[in-house]
Amino acid sequence: MDVLNARSILVTGSNRGIGFELVRQLAERSNGPEWIFATCRDPQGPRSQELKNLAAKHQEVKIIQLDTTDPSSIEAAVAKVTELLKGSGLNLLVNNAGILKVLTQETPQSMSEIYETNVIGPMIVSQAFLPLLKKASQESAHKGMSCSKAAIVNMSSEGGSITSVTIPILVSYLCSKAALNMLTKCQSLEFGKEDILCIALHPGWVETDMGKSVGQPPLTVEFSVREILKTLAHLSEKDNGTFVNWEGKVLPW
Amino acid sequence: MDVLNARSILVTGSNRGIGFELVRQLAERSNGPEWIFATCRDPQGPRSQELKNLAAKHQEVKIIQLDTTDPSSIEAAVAKVTELLKGSGLNLLVNNAGILKVLTQETPQSMSEIYETNVIGPMIVSQAFLPLLKKASQESAHKGMSCSKAAIVNMSSEGGSITSVTIPILVSYLCSKAALNMLTKCQSLEFGKEDILCIALHPGWVETDMGKSVGQPPLTVEFSVREILKTLAHLSEKDNGTFVNWEGKVLPW
Repeated sequence: MDVLNARSILVTGSNRGIGFELVRQLAERSNGPEWIFATCRDPQGPRSQELKNLAAKHQEVKIIQLDTTDPSSIEAAVAKVTELLKGSGLNLLVNNAGILKVLTQETPQSMSEIYETNVIGPMIVSQAFLPLLKKASQESAHKGMSCSKAAIVNMSSEGGSITSVTIPILVSYLCSKAALNMLTKCQSLEFGKEDILCIALHPGWVETDMGKSVGQPPLTVEFSVREILKTLAHLSEKDNGTFVNWEGKVLPW
Repeated sequence: MDVLNARSILVTGSNRGIGFELVRQLAERSNGPEWIFATCRDPQGPRSQELKNLAAKHQEVKIIQLDTTDPSSIEAAVAKVTELLKGSGLNLLVNNAGILKVLTQETPQSMSEIYETNVIGPMIVSQAFLPLLKKASQESAHKGMSCSKAAIVNMSSEGGSITSVTIPILVSYLCSKAALNMLTKCQSLEFGKEDILCIALHPGWVETDMGKSVGQPPLTVEFSVREILKTLAHLSEKDNGTFVNWEGKVLPW
């Protein structure tokens, strides 16, 4: 498949950074998804204004409140998405919401907080949307796996590659991304049986607020997301359970 | 070096399983360490009786209360160990305390709890004992790195190998061990500058209470620990930041 043609996509943490740009590029396609569920913690807050402006121009963009660390918020989001899909499944879940803290010394609190958002969040969000992903997989006429049919994309980081790490900073973040990679591998083994493709994705070091908090990123958000969307379009069952970067190159664990 | 000849060793979670057996085999050596700090959460509890019996027979075994999830308990343990060492450093820290929960479905609570003990615990215990480990490194006449000079051994599991996982059960445990492997890699980069060797160790699937909770383990605790002690004796700077099993074989991340 050359173009990602999922009918429905959900992106967490979509009010800014890579999440927002994913929603924007998908919404501006001439033949894009029918439903783009753009979730964020605080849709009414000032940091969601850009997303609200985008949704005002594109009716397929549905803004949904979702705090990935709050089970009742997740439950309400699943109910809302189920209602809007009117019996259809969800093709693609992008667990994009994540945090990073720049600290001179990690504490039990920083470690717990970052694990909660970066690992436990994607786990419980995936569990909650699993029935809709299974439905999408079952209603597809295509054999095999693809992001257009049914998939979970976990936004990881090359920082989570134990093989590649050379500078021991941001330990809470690096540990959370290594654990997220393990979660992705487990999901690929479990959900792969239902033809749901699961991958860990490194978006590159990108000019988002997060990316800029640790230096001068070489990639623009626009470029990274354009390449990510191309990569997602080409993934198939042979990629299930792997760790790839924005351009589809496989990274070591 | 053919024999581990650390003068001082600290083992967390040493009232049973692999921790207890490490203390027992070291204490029963004719020419063993001068100080074996055997820490556990509840030295007065019924599950510490065997350790108390051992300490009664071997005066080099010092039982010390240490709850790896409680910073004030860690601080008190460091003070006690510092006092007992009378100016010497600590050669070897074994972060052995760990937990596993067999659940049909992971929850945010199970994920957090296991991360706290299996990852945050080793991180803050290592930070707390770092001055004593540095002292041991500085006072050694030997060049290079070894477990006899100054080292941190994090008790990991092959289950934490993202490359090797084939069955997606015990997700909270697997994610915690992948994160512990990342922590070990970060520690090896940071503490390696001080000639403190850091490794992640897979003890094998062993007949401990934990090992038996998930099936029939092939290895006895006695055998695993005998091999671990041989392996630790042979590690050097070329092994810093690696993931090895009981017999010293390198495992993939």
